[in-house]
Parts: sequence; C-alpha cells; structure tokens
Amino acid sequence: MDIMTSVGLVAGIIVVATMMLLGGDLHLFVSEHAIIIIFGGSIDATMIRFPLGVMLHGLPLGAKFAFSMSRLSARDLVDELARIAEIARKQGPVGLEKVETDEPFLAKGIRYIADGYDMEFIRDNLERDRDNFLCHLDEGQKIYRAIGDCAPAFGMIGTLIGMVQMFANMTDPSKLGPFMATALLATLYGAVVANILTLPIADKLHLKLADEEINRTLIIDGILMIRESKSPTLVREMLIAYLPEKHRGEAEPEPVPA
Amino acid sequence: MDIMTSVGLVAGIIVVATMMLLGGDLHLFVSEHAIIIIFGGSIDATMIRFPLGVMLHGLPLGAKFAFSMSRLSARDLVDELARIAEIARKQGPVGLEKVETDEPFLAKGIRYIADGYDMEFIRDNLERDRDNFLCHLDEGQKIYRAIGDCAPAFGMIGTLIGMVQMFANMTDPSKLGPFMATALLATLYGAVVANILTLPIADKLHLKLADEEINRTLIIDGILMIRESKSPTLVREMLIAYLPEKHRGEAEPEPVPA
Amino acid sequence: MDIMTSVGLVAGIIVVATMMLLGGDLHLFVSEHAIIIIFGGSIDATMIRFPLGVMLHGLPLGAKFAFSMSRLSARDLVDELARIAEIARKQGPVGLEKVETDEPFLAKGIRYIADGYDMEFIRDNLERDRDNFLCHLDEGQKIYRAIGDCAPAFGMIGTLIGMVQMFANMTDPSKLGPFMATALLATLYGAVVANILTLPIADKLHLKLADEEINRTLIIDGILMIRESKSPTLVREMLIAYLPEKHRGEAEPEPVPA
Amino acid sequence: MDIMTSVGLVAGIIVVATMMLLGGDLHLFVSEHAIIIIFGGSIDATMIRFPLGVMLHGLPLGAKFAFSMSRLSARDLVDELARIAEIARKQGPVGLEKVETDEPFLAKGIRYIADGYDMEFIRDNLERDRDNFLCHLDEGQKIYRAIGDCAPAFGMIGTLIGMVQMFANMTDPSKLGPFMATALLATLYGAVVANILTLPIADKLHLKLADEEINRTLIIDGILMIRESKSPTLVREMLIAYLPEKHRGEAEPEPVPA
Amino acid sequence: MDIMTSVGLVAGIIVVATMMLLGGDLHLFVSEHAIIIIFGGSIDATMIRFPLGVMLHGLPLGAKFAFSMSRLSARDLVDELARIAEIARKQGPVGLEKVETDEPFLAKGIRYIADGYDMEFIRDNLERDRDNFLCHLDEGQKIYRAIGDCAPAFGMIGTLIGMVQMFANMTDPSKLGPFMATALLATLYGAVVANILTLPIADKLHLKLADEEINRTLIIDGILMIRESKSPTLVREMLIAYLPEKHRGEAEPEPVPA
Repeated sequence: MDIMTSVGLVAGIIVVATMMLLGGDLHLFVSEHAIIIIFGGSIDATMIRFPLGVMLHGLPLGAKFAFSMSRLSARDLVDELARIAEIARKQGPVGLEKVETDEPFLAKGIRYIADGYDMEFIRDNLERDRDNFLCHLDEGQKIYRAIGDCAPAFGMIGTLIGMVQMFANMTDPSKLGPFMATALLATLYGAVVANILTLPIADKLHLKLADEEINRTLIIDGILMIRESKSPTLVREMLIAYLPEKHRGEAEPEPVPA
Repeated sequence: MDIMTSVGLVAGIIVVATMMLLGGDLHLFVSEHAIIIIFGGSIDATMIRFPLGVMLHGLPLGAKFAFSMSRLSARDLVDELARIAEIARKQGPVGLEKVETDEPFLAKGIRYIADGYDMEFIRDNLERDRDNFLCHLDEGQKIYRAIGDCAPAFGMIGTLIGMVQMFANMTDPSKLGPFMATALLATLYGAVVANILTLPIADKLHLKLADEEINRTLIIDGILMIRESKSPTLVREMLIAYLPEKHRGEAEPEPVPA
Repeated sequence: MDIMTSVGLVAGIIVVATMMLLGGDLHLFVSEHAIIIIFGGSIDATMIRFPLGVMLHGLPLGAKFAFSMSRLSARDLVDELARIAEIARKQGPVGLEKVETDEPFLAKGIRYIADGYDMEFIRDNLERDRDNFLCHLDEGQKIYRAIGDCAPAFGMIGTLIGMVQMFANMTDPSKLGPFMATALLATLYGAVVANILTLPIADKLHLKLADEEINRTLIIDGILMIRESKSPTLVREMLIAYLPEKHRGEAEPEPVPA
Repeated sequence: MDIMTSVGLVAGIIVVATMMLLGGDLHLFVSEHAIIIIFGGSIDATMIRFPLGVMLHGLPLGAKFAFSMSRLSARDLVDELARIAEIARKQGPVGLEKVETDEPFLAKGIRYIADGYDMEFIRDNLERDRDNFLCHLDEGQKIYRAIGDCAPAFGMIGTLIGMVQMFANMTDPSKLGPFMATALLATLYGAVVANILTLPIADKLHLKLADEEINRTLIIDGILMIRESKSPTLVREMLIAYLPEKHRGEAEPEPVPA
Repeated sequence: MDIMTSVGLVAGIIVVATMMLLGGDLHLFVSEHAIIIIFGGSIDATMIRFPLGVMLHGLPLGAKFAFSMSRLSARDLVDELARIAEIARKQGPVGLEKVETDEPFLAKGIRYIADGYDMEFIRDNLERDRDNFLCHLDEGQKIYRAIGDCAPAFGMIGTLIGMVQMFANMTDPSKLGPFMATALLATLYGAVVANILTLPIADKLHLKLADEEINRTLIIDGILMIRESKSPTLVREMLIAYLPEKHRGEAEPEPVPA
C-alpha cells in the first residue's frame, strides 16, 4: 500500500476541514449544487474526451495504482529473481511450480517457465502484457489530469450560475450574503478537487509509470535468463547492470583494494 | 455512433440546466446578448483565422466524427480483411464485386481490386484519400480548439460591455442586480461553450485522428496484400503484426506448451 | 482579396457594436483614455521589442497579406506554369515577353527567362527574393502577435489607473459608477484589440506563410524547368508531384482500369 | 555559503515586513488559519505527488544546496587537481594520504587513489556517486517547484473558505472587514511562499545542478588522470580544455606575439 | 544608440503619465509602498535566483545593449573588413596599426594581426571572447525576463497587503477609497514595470543576441582571412556568402544578361 498517497489525501482533507471548522460550522460548506456541477460537469466533459473503454479501465486502474505500492522494489526484484534462478538451477523447471511470489506479473512469468513454454512465446506474451498495462496506466493518468484541468472551470461555471441567481433576486440585500456564500462553494469545490485530489494523483501515476516500466522490463529480462538456465550469480549481476543508478542502492559492492 | 460524445454532451447540459433550475427560473439564464457575443464573436474570430474552405470542411467533418464511431475496430478490420482475402482467393477479383462492407474507405479499396487496377494506382489513390482525410480532420480539430480558446475571451468582452452599461446607468441602484446578472451571463456562456462543447470535442477529434490513421493504413496494407493474392492466413498474421499492442486485444494466441 | 479576413473583421465589429447598442448609447463606449493607453502602450512596447526597420516593414506587409489573397492557388499555378512552358516551347524566350500574369513573383521569373539570364542567376535571385519575403512576413506575424499579447496588459493598466483615480475621489459615491464604467473601457478595448484584431490576424499570417512558401518554391521550380526548355507535360507532372497532398485537389487523375 | 540566497531571502522578508509595518500593526498579518492551509495543504499535496524517500531526501538536500556554495569554482578545482597531481607525482599514492581538501567528493577520489583501487573501480564508484547526487538534487528542485506551483492554489482555497464564512455570517456588516482581511491573508501567504521562497529556490537549484555536474565530472576526469600518473601540466591543460568557456575565466593565457 | 528602445520607453512613460494626468493629479500615483514592494521584491527574488556575478554582469550589460546599437550593420561590417583587407594588402600588418574603427571587437582583432599573432591564437582568443560575451548577454536577457515575470506577482502581494490593512481598519468607510487606491498602485506598478520596462527589454536583448552572434562570427571570419592575406575582393565575396539572406540588403548584384 502506498502510504504517502493515503496520508497526503487524508491530511489534505483534515487541513481543509480544520479551516472550515475554525470559522464556523462544517455544514456551511456542504452544497449539493456544488457537488452536482463539479462532479457532474467534470465527468461529463471527460466522457466526451475519452472513449468508454478507456474511462472504465483508466479510472479504477489509476485509483488502484495511486494508492497501492509495487510490493517489491527494483532491488528486491533482483534478489527475488536470483532466488528463483537458484531454485530453477537446483530443481529444474518443475521446482518452480511451488515458488510463491507476491508480484502477479512475476508469478505469470514463473508459471510460463514451469509449463515449459519456449523463449519467444514467453517474451512475446510478457512484453505484450507489459505494454498493455503501461498503456492503460498512462490512460488512467491522462483521465485524472483531464478531470483536474476542467474541475476549476466547472467551479467557475457553478459560481457564475449562483451569482446570476443572486443578482437577479437582489431585491432583499440581506439575502445576498448566503447566496454569495453558496455561489463561492462551487469554485472552492473545484479548487479542492483539482489541487488535493486529481492533479496530485495524476502526477503520482506519472512517476509510477516509469517505475513500473523498469520493474516489468526487469522481470522479463530475469525470467528469460532463468528460462535459459543462467546461473543465479550471472542473473543478479546482469540485472543490476541494467538498473538505473538510483535503484541500485544496496547493490554497491564493497571496495576491494587492488 | 459514438455514444460517449452524445451522452457526455447531453449529461453536461442536464447538469448545467439542473443547477440553473435549482436556484430559480431557467429563463433567467436566457440572454440573446450573450448568445450574440459568444457565437458571433467566436465564429467571426475563427473566420479571420482560417480560410473559408477549411472552415466549411472542418466544422461539419469535426461534428460528424465527434459523434460517430468507426464502424469497425482495428481488430474487426483485420478479420474483415481476412474474410475478403478468403473470397478473393476462392472466387477471384470478380467475387469481390458482391462483397458488402460498412466502411466506405474499405469499400473503395475492394472496388479498385474488383475493377482490376494495378498495385501502384491503388496505393497512390488510397494513400492520397487517407492523407486528405486526415488533413481535413486535423483542420476540424484545430477549428474547434480555436473556438474553445477564444469563447471565454468573448465572454469577458460581453461581460465588460454589460458592466460598462450598468455602471454608466447607476443612478438607480435597485437596477444594478439584474444588469449585473445579465453581464455575467456572457462569461457563463463562454465558459460553458468552451468547457462542455468545443474543447472536449477537439480533444476527442485528436484521439480519433490517431485511430483513423491506424485503421486506414491497415486497410491500405490489407487491400494491397489481397491485390497480390496473399493467403487469408498471411494477411491476418501480417496485419496483426502491424497493429499497436493495445488494439490487438482478442488476437492473443492461446499459449501452447512447447 | 481575402474575403474571410475582411468579413470576419467587419462581422466581429458589428457583433460588438450590436452588443453596445442593445444596452444603450454607443458613445458610452467611446473613451479617448482607453484609446491612448491601448494603442499608445501596445505600440510603444512593440517599438522597444523590435527594430525600426522590422516594424516599418512588418506592420503594413502583415496588414496587406492578411487582407489579400494569393491570386492563384498552388493548383492554378501549376496550370499557369504549364501554359507558360507551352508558350516558351513554341515561341522561344522571346514569346515570353508578351506573357501577362497576375502574380508579380511569377512575372519576375518570366522576365528573367525572357531576358536570357542563366540558370544560376535566376535561381539565386528568386530564392533570395522568396527568403527575404518569407522572413518579412514572419516578422509581420510576430509583430501582430506581440501587440495581441500585450494589449490586454495595457487594458489592465488603463483600468487600474482609472480605478485609482475613482477610489481617490470617492467622496461623492454617485460619481463612482461613471468612473468605473470609464475604467473598464480600457480592459474592454484591450480584449477587443487582441481577440478580434491582432491575434486572429497573426494566426492567419502564420497559415499564409506556409502557403506562400509552397507557392513561391513551386514558381521557382517551374521557372527553372521552363528555362531548361522542359516540355509542358513534364513541367506539369513534376510540379504536381512536389505538391503537398491537400493542394492537389483537381489533379487527381481518373482511374484507368489496367 | 551562498550569500545571495540568504541575502535575497532575508531582504525579501524585510521588504514584505516593511510594507506591513508601514500601514499598521504586524500582528494584523499573523493568521494561524493561513499558515495551516498554505503549509498544510502544499505539503499534503506534495506528499501525494512524491514517494516518501524522495521527499525526505529532496527537501533537506535542496535547502542545503540552495544556501551553500560549492567551496571551489571549476577553475579552482583545476588548480587543486594540478596540485594533487604534483604531490602524487613526487610522493606517489602514499603522499596523497596526507592531502586535505574541502570538497568531500574530491576527498573521496583522493582516498581511492591512496588506497590503490584500480581505474575501473574508481570510475564506476565516482560516476555512480555523481549520478545519484545529481538525481537527488533534481528531485529536490522538483519538490520545491511543486510546492511553489500549488501554494497559490491553496491560498485561493483558504480565501474562498474565509469568504464563504464571511458571507454566511453577513448579518452584521461591521464585521465584514476583519473577516475579509483574514480571508485575504491566505492568498497573501500563498503568493509570498511561492514567489519569495520556493520558486526562486527551485530556480537556483536548477542552476546549481548544471554547475555540480560540471564540477563533479571535472573531479572524476582529474582523479582518473592522477591515477594514471599523468604530469601536473598535462592534467591542468586537459581539464581546462574540457571546461565550458565561461568557467575558464582566469585561465586565459597572456597573448604571446608569434 | 538604439533609438527605438529609448523612444519606445519614453513614449510608454508619456502615455501612462498622460492617462494619469487626464484624470487628476500625478501625485495620486506616487506611492513609496508600491516602489518598495515592486523593486525590492523583484530584485530580492532575482538575487535568490541568480549568482551575484551573473547579476552584476547581466543587469548593466543588458541595459547597455538594450539602449545601444551595433555601430555597424552586418553589411557595413563586410565593407569595413574589405577596407581593412585592402590596407593590409597594401601596407602589410604594420599599416593596420593606424586603422581606426568604432567596433571594439573588430579593433581587438585588428590589433592581434598588427601585433603578428598566429592564426590559431587569434581564432582561439576571439572565439572565447565572442562566446563569453554571448553568454553574458544571454544571462542579462534572462535576468530582465525573471524580473518581468515576478513583478506582477509582487504587485499582487503589495495590493493584498494594502487590502488587508484596509479591511482591518474598515470602521470608517470614508477612508476605504484612498486605502483601496493605494493598494491598487502596487498592482499598477508591477504591470507597468513588467510590460513597459523589463519584458520588452528582454525580448529586444533576445533579438540582439542573434545579431551579435552573426556580427562577431563575421568579424572573426574576416579577421582570419585578412591574417591569411586574402584579397579584399575575396574577403568581401566570401563574407557575403556567409551572411543570412535578410542582412545582405544592398549586396544584391545587378542582374547581368547572360
């Protein structure tokens, strides 16, 4: 689970709620009008923008990945793959049938080896899986960004509608205040949805996209080396050599005087 | 028919109308002034921006493609082309004369084969058709985006005109409210036209442009292979190999243990 | 003459004027203050931005090309060049002395052939002419865009000046309205100048730049082929082959069964 | 120490404080509400955007580098490396054990030579160090920019919350002023945090990133040449040849008549 | 002297001053508060952004070049270089000692030839000079742009501070106007500084950067040819061939019938 997304989101809501409570009642800030225009409007405009399939895949996939973590870091994956290479070495493909792993994509690769598929079939299938997955994650990211981009505009539309009604009924100036308060809520909702919810999630998904590409490519490379019965040491060394610098972390060898 | 564009648009209008009705009469929000400035202004500015031919082609073509769907997905097209290759194999070019298809571009290609034109002629004509079509679709997209970009500015112009009139006639403060309400309507119309109508349509057309390019290139490749009397299996295999990963969908072969 | 620019501009002014008249007097909207700040300020800031020569060339050239049309489309030019090649073939260079054409750049090329200059001289001079012309047109485009970009800022400056004066003299609240009306006029003028006048013209010049480059390059290629006494058919064929797809239009040959 | 960052920051705070004091009490501008929404909101949104490790590294590293200077300019580094080459020449690797330097990255390189590691090991380790460091500095820069980008939005959210409360309690117009003042403070805080604190720091870090890359690459090149026992003159000459022009400064040789 | 920058700047100030005088006293618009926040804030934020050396070089260099002209156009430089080549031809390097020129960079090149330095030394020194100069001019441009980008933000900060003070002291509504007027002045100052002063100067420097690069490269090429004792005719011809089309101007040879 990606603690940061959840903590950030909960903390953001607490901050906004605290602000609201400090100056009065929370119910002042509940407006079904604002909810209708912000969520209705943003989702409608996003429906026009993207095909149905993209939205049905992208919204839940984005939410899932924004709040969940890769169970294994790139470094852990290398260790895991070296461990599996060890097992494959000692017990042959059959031994892999009992290997358990938390990462479903890795599990799929292991099953392919255990089932004895050939190299090309494994590469084609895993690469197709990876590309499809990255494509869907990218669509998810774009949908959250599109919502974040148009939410403030719908906030403004909601406020304008409220203000027109307010000015049109301005016979009794004493009612002006509450009307104005309600009108401003739409802008407030739009800004909160964009700045606390959707835009940060889109940015997070953008970062995760790069990580997932590295991890899944690593898994494919590792699985293919295990299929070729490469030694665990070689698997570990070659995979570390592929890693971008910042993921190597603990991999730095102790300096040995020459 | 592209349900999403229609549903999104209708839902967007319902959301905005609901907001308006919740706070009073709908007729509060009808303003011929705002309609004149938003539609008049945006279209005038777009007329200066683009040549006449481009506007006359682009606006209807964009509208047509935003609301209609490719009748066939890329995957379906491959099946369709394989089916046609089968017919061409069995019955020769003459058999193609009776083939019916929903896709006019594909129909044109089939007619060329049935009429016995040579490879180069078919390629040149179909590619020219495709390029012209993509160019017009792109122009349509740009026109919708240009309208969406300048509509809010014309909203502001309309509101400024209304406010100048309001302030100039401020002898009777009780009239200030209705004047202000009318002035704000122009900004509201501009925001609605841009955010619910034109910008989402421009984004949708941008996505469709990529799909249409893939589909029409696929059709050209398929038609040329059929003209060369390639076998249906080969046609299917090669076309699938050209497809971007995410369009392959159902094409994933069942894994066969080696 | 480029009808669209004129019609769009006139229609835009009519729309704005209609809006103004619908709510009262037109003279409400005449403000020498706003004229001074918008035109004075925008032109002063543009004077700092560009050298004198560039402004003196760019402003009128831009205006001229925004409102005038290439007399001949790329397709017509090919026909015209084929016609001239025909004459040159039959009557020799001397026959070209009597050829008349509406396009001055083409006329210059014909005169060069008629006067018997050699290939290299003709190519160098025409290419230099074309490059100079495109460079000036591009400068004109940039100047109109620069004015369009800073006009709204000067509108804001004018409005701020007006508001400061208004608030400073706020002893008599009844005068507040007319003062405010005047202050807003500067913002209104800035928005109108940018959105109806300069930005659309800059966009139009940007499109024309591409067309002019195609046309003048076409003329240079055609003139050089005529200088080499190529046959009219060859001239037409080769020039059409150079044309971007969308300009070929009527050039599409009728399909001939093979 | 990077005087400019500190001086600029302190001077910026003095300017703002002076403005506040000139018009009344400073305590008018203290608002725990605004502090909560700006710092709470910006940090929460940034927590969603970046992984925990990146934030924990990036924020302090960015602060440290924004306020500290490279102890040595690129030119000084060349001199320092030439001096170390001199020592290594005369006393051998053992002599380097006593060399002291202010630059930790350089010190690490010297220790590697003194300890007798081979070329490849030294290059690999130093390059990994450099890449890791630049990656973290870049993350720091991005975090400051992300905070600077969203602080004004949270200022607006804070002001909107305050205004809703104000309008909702508008029964007593005499309280409107202080409420409005408090509401505006959130926008003020957001603008100050973005424009005086975070965005300039992000820009400074962006500049330093380029300098650090040059310096650390220079050190790696120098250390490797020293490891190869190149002569001090050669080390100096080759390193200066690598330097970008503007860092050479004092390196310009006096012209010698030929 | 670059008349346009001065004229544009003076005219801009006159336009703004006229606007101010038309509506009342000029002293209404003098506000030490606004001066402090705009100049203090913008310069402080720029101090954080750039190193001290860059600011001390960039600000005066930018000002000098925005208001001064290259004494010689590229075309004039070619003539000047041809004249010097003539002298060098007739009188030898010694004759160059008496040559006078307005362009310091050219003068430096002539002195190098007169002093008998060899080709490589001259090329290295002049190219280093040119690169250093262009780098500093570019830094100057960036500083002016940075000031122009943040001045409006500090205008907003100043206005917000003024408005908070105004609303907090709203017991006497009659004072509201003058307070508001003062508050708005900061926004006005920020907009004027950005739109009339710094952004146009940054744009002008951007244009001059390109011109200076052409001119100085031309001088280096010319000086090197003179050092090689090339004939004046050859110098002129080759330099003109290097010139971008639009700088050739008068260089266009009269057409000679072949």
